[in-house]
Parts: sequence; C-alpha cells; structure tokens
Amino acid sequence: MTNMYKTEAIGKVSKEAPFEKITIGREGTSNNDVEIDVKYCGFCHTDIHLVNNDWGFTTFPSVGGHEVAGVAVKVGSNVKDIKVGDHVGVGYFLDSCLCCEYCENNDEINCIKGVTLTSCGQIQHGRVKTDNGNYTYGGWSKKMTVDRRFLSKIPKTYPLEKAGPASCAGVTMYTPLNEHGACKGGLKIGIAGLGGLGQMGVLLSKAMGNHVTVISSSDGKKEMAKELGADHYVSQNEEEAMKSLEKSMDLIIDTIPASHDINPPLNLVKKKGTYVVVGPAPEPFKVAAFKLIADQVRITGTLTGGLKMTQECIDFMAENNIVQKTEMINSLQEMNCASKEIIKGNSSGVRYVIDMEKLLS
Amino acid sequence: MTNMYKTEAIGKVSKEAPFEKITIGREGTSNNDVEIDVKYCGFCHTDIHLVNNDWGFTTFPSVGGHEVAGVAVKVGSNVKDIKVGDHVGVGYFLDSCLCCEYCENNDEINCIKGVTLTSCGQIQHGRVKTDNGNYTYGGWSKKMTVDRRFLSKIPKTYPLEKAGPASCAGVTMYTPLNEHGACKGGLKIGIAGLGGLGQMGVLLSKAMGNHVTVISSSDGKKEMAKELGADHYVSQNEEEAMKSLEKSMDLIIDTIPASHDINPPLNLVKKKGTYVVVGPAPEPFKVAAFKLIADQVRITGTLTGGLKMTQECIDFMAENNIVQKTEMINSLQEMNCASKEIIKGNSSGVRYVIDMEKLLS
Repeated sequence: MTNMYKTEAIGKVSKEAPFEKITIGREGTSNNDVEIDVKYCGFCHTDIHLVNNDWGFTTFPSVGGHEVAGVAVKVGSNVKDIKVGDHVGVGYFLDSCLCCEYCENNDEINCIKGVTLTSCGQIQHGRVKTDNGNYTYGGWSKKMTVDRRFLSKIPKTYPLEKAGPASCAGVTMYTPLNEHGACKGGLKIGIAGLGGLGQMGVLLSKAMGNHVTVISSSDGKKEMAKELGADHYVSQNEEEAMKSLEKSMDLIIDTIPASHDINPPLNLVKKKGTYVVVGPAPEPFKVAAFKLIADQVRITGTLTGGLKMTQECIDFMAENNIVQKTEMINSLQEMNCASKEIIKGNSSGVRYVIDMEKLLS
Repeated sequence: MTNMYKTEAIGKVSKEAPFEKITIGREGTSNNDVEIDVKYCGFCHTDIHLVNNDWGFTTFPSVGGHEVAGVAVKVGSNVKDIKVGDHVGVGYFLDSCLCCEYCENNDEINCIKGVTLTSCGQIQHGRVKTDNGNYTYGGWSKKMTVDRRFLSKIPKTYPLEKAGPASCAGVTMYTPLNEHGACKGGLKIGIAGLGGLGQMGVLLSKAMGNHVTVISSSDGKKEMAKELGADHYVSQNEEEAMKSLEKSMDLIIDTIPASHDINPPLNLVKKKGTYVVVGPAPEPFKVAAFKLIADQVRITGTLTGGLKMTQECIDFMAENNIVQKTEMINSLQEMNCASKEIIKGNSSGVRYVIDMEKLLS
C-alpha cells in the first residue's frame, strides 16, 4: 500500500540547467507525519551547493530548500501536539536514527548514523520516502510530509515569511550560545563576520542580555553592527583596537565563510574562554600548541542543532521579536538572479525567502 | 628589617657553564611562609630550557627545579595546617596575584597578572624575595621559603623521593582529567605519546576507572603501555587499527612534545568529545573548519593546574599508590650526564630526581 502523492516543486535537472518547475512524488509514511502546505522557504548558499552537486553527492533532478515555513494541512493520528492550521517549520534535516546517544539526547543533528538532509539527502532511517526511492527533495515545493519529531511549531505571533531562516541560521547561532552559557546573559561575546549568521548572532546574543562586539574586516559593517544593536565594533585591521580587546571575551562565534587566520579573533578570547566556528572556511586553521596550553581556550564548532534547540530558538525569537531582514523572491526569474548574487557573495546579509505559493501559482 | 638567609644551590653562571654549586640568598617574607629543607627535586627538560635561557627571559646565575619535595622546618605564625616535620611540595609556580577571577577560583596558574615561576621567574606579587631582587631561584637548593598558599602537603604514606613529579607531570595530567569528567571513571580515554606526561596520564586515568588507549607512533611503547595498565595500544602508523577506533573516545590528551599532525588522533574523538593538548609541539596544528563543525570536537590545552588541583592530585596518587619510575641523581657529574640524555630526548620516560642532600653534601 502506498500513499504517494504528486506535488509541484522548483528543481534543477542538471548543474547547468536553470531553476524550473518540476513535478515530484512524496509519500506520507506513517501516522506520525504532518503534511505541510509550504508557504515560504529560504534560499541560501548551501541550497546552491546542494542542488548543483558541488559536494558530489547530489542526484538530479534536485530540489533545494531547508528553511521551510508552512501550515499543517493533515496530521497523523499519533500526533497530539500539532493540529491542522498550525504553523510549522522544517530545517536542515528531516530524519535520523532516533536511537543513538545523540538522538536520545535531543541532539539529532549529531546522529551517529547521520541525519537525512532535507534536500538532496540520502534516504535512510525510514521516516521519509520520495518517488525516486533514494534521496530527498527539499522544501521548494507545494507540499511536504515530515515526521512530527523533525518539525518545529512556529508561534502564530511570529511572521511566517520570516520563520524559515530561524530553522537554520537561527538554530546554528542559538545552539552555541545556549551551550556556552550565553542564554543567561552577562557574557562578553564576539561575533566574527556579519553575514546572515553573524547578524542572527548579534540579535540573539543581545536579546539574551550579553555585551556584544562585532569583529569584522570590512568597515562597511560598522553601521550595520550598530543598527543590529551591537555594543561595540572592532575592525580586525586596526591593530591597536584589537590589542585593547585581548583576552576580554568569554565567547566568540566565528561565522566567516572564507579562509582566514583564526588567531587575531582568537586572541580576544579570555583564558578558558570558548571559540566556536560555524563558518565553513575552506582552508584549515592554524593554532599553536603554546596558545592552547597557555590560555586553555576551547576551540569547537557547531552544525545547526537538534529539534529541541530549534524549538527553543523559534520560541525565543518570537518572544523577543527577532526577525532578520529578508528579501522576497516571487518568480523563477528573480530566483535565477538571486542565485547569481548569492554565488558572488551576498555581503548585504539579507536572507532570500521564496514565496512558494506565488512562485508555483 | 630583613631575614635574608644564605643557602647552597645548584646553578649555572652562563648557558655554556656546567652545573655547579653556588650560594644564593632567599628571604622569608611573612608569617604566611613555610621554610623547607629540600630533600628531592625533579630534573626535566623544562628545567634545562629555563636555566639555559632558551626562552629568553632567564638571568644568570640561574637555579632550576620546579618539582620540589621537602620537609617543613619553620612555619609562620599564620600557618595553621602545616607543622614542622610535615612533607610538602612546590610545583611550577610560587606566587600569583591572588585577587583575579582565576586566583579566586583556585586556578592560580591562570592568574591574569601571571604567576611567578618557581625557577627563573620574574618576582612580582610580593610573596617571594631573593638576594638578586628580580627573579626566583628554583628548588635545586638546600632550603626554600614559600607562602603556604603555594605549597601542597604530601601525605606521609607517599614516598617523598617520588613526590616531586606529582607537582608537575601529575597535576598537568590530573587537571584535564578532572575538568573533563574522567575522575568519575567510565570514559574512553586516549593518551597520545608515552613520555613522562603520557605515563602519568595512563596511571591516573586507569586509577580513576576509565578505559585507556595509548596512541603512539613508536612501537617500542607497546610493552610499556601494557606494563602501565593501559587497556589498549594503537600505533598511529597502522591505518586500519586507527580507522577501527574512529570517533570512539570521549577524551584524548595529547602529550607529544614534537611537531605532529593532530588530525589522526583527533579523528578518534567522538562527536562533542574533547582533545586536550599538553605537549608543547613547536609547529602550529592545522584543523579544518569542517571538522570542527561536523564533529564539534573541543580542542583545548592545559598548563599544569592550580594548588587545589595539585593537592587533590597528590592525595589521589597517595591513595592509589601511583608512582612513576624515577632515576636518582646523586652528584653533579650524574646531573651533567642526565642533562645530555634529556636534551637528546628521554624516550624511556624515566623521571630524573635529584637527591638534594647527597648532591649538596
């Protein structure tokens, strides 16, 4: 017995092809599922890497989208805490083993067997099925069916068109802030880089009651840092200003996606402080043993977070009216333009969001 | 008013000079002090770097020694918990500001203003004075005077001639084990490198009830690992054996003092596990952002520990009969020979200990 259904989506049939409308098949597999009318879905650099097979594991046709915001339209009989009409979100992944030590600790993103990515991910674990049998189609589609465990509830008070990035950039920044004590406030926090992740980091850290310094090498970001509410801005190029902040911060989150020397911002971390890498810099960081020994800084990283963190993050963002600047995409033409902007390096920090209903109408 | 006294010591008058007997002046500065007859003192590579001015901050004549084990012979009126005849130890430092957040947290080694090194350290903070007025003479001497706060008590049940290394190698390994949850037992721990620090790491981790794997690139260490009680040994050169241990360990302590690639042992750490560097490898480590993001391993370091940790460590070693192999040095000639051995790289892992009474008699 199958309950496969057809739905429209935005996909690519090859790396070189433009984005186009395609029809895909998804299956609702159990009474634990929620069927979603997708209203909005983010569009970011990760999507482009995935749909273009930049990382070598994508099969075509590929459908991107991992910052999904929609409305529940069918709810499986076992799902007690979501009802038809509720707003729901899907993030970077939509399945995991649910029985390893990480899954059991609500930290599904670290599943030992690996999560199933929402877009272009290899299907395993059994909670998601598509007509190709092997890989997932992302959220750039009219409908999705997702196991309740891998959904978050979006408060109705939160603007749905802003909610997509919360499931990705939001939780990516919320998780290390939570893990390293920033939720209680009172820490000195540095945010290195001020793209989409960095901006989210400033907004969240400030709302939690911390003192926030933006560290950037591009002076154009100074004004933006101020607008976002950062307490302080320091340019990495100003040696004296950097010197004056040495060993002053409890926590730095490095969101810089380009190759860079980690040591100038690392020197701003207090002894025993924490440096979290979230930006996928391509070249390895170099860190001296002496630095680790003398200052006992802790260097680590974050790859989004589990569903518990995601829900906490969205609730926190709703309570504190945290929204990111977004730019709406309403047509395939706009999507192809935005794609070029993103590949060039979107320094404005605006998050692109696709209005799925308009685009697929 | 001064109570400066003269005492014999082993020093160097220049980098090129051999070790020789010299006379130095120390002052007992307050009622908080304990005067110590030094019985034994360790002799390790750090001593050689210090007395030879390898690190550029040493003034001659220089007196080494930072693993001191002796007997209290005079006790200041404010000192209530040490009495004449007690066994006491001095480690890597003997003064700090005592008012910064680290000192207040019994973590004096991280003093914001910097600790005063026991040997060749710049005098500050006011709790230690010498006849040169500027820098400290280490423990290679008949007598020392040290503020009670910077002493540890050595249980009488513990062999005094083995106690010196506890204040240095012991606490250097005990501190990260304690900080990362190994004291409760039940963790999977890797010890990379099996010199003096590595051996101490195996003994401590096993006594705490953990599963211990020695990671080495020198096959000669396999037998030693077994003798020390390690559960498992893996050679870094055996790709398959290393592969089979990937992401299996909660904590790795890297004691390797030579330049090396951190990534093969780092790959043995579980997601969210911890990698602590204690070996002063000269060349920077290279770590990919992707590794930090995907596995969220925490990379940090340790530089010995505070006095609370030191006391806990010595008590733990006494309770568990943990002693390191030591070789006794009884003459200047033996000391000059050992010096050459240490500089060549003491792969036997034996700790050299000077019998100060014999050597200065």
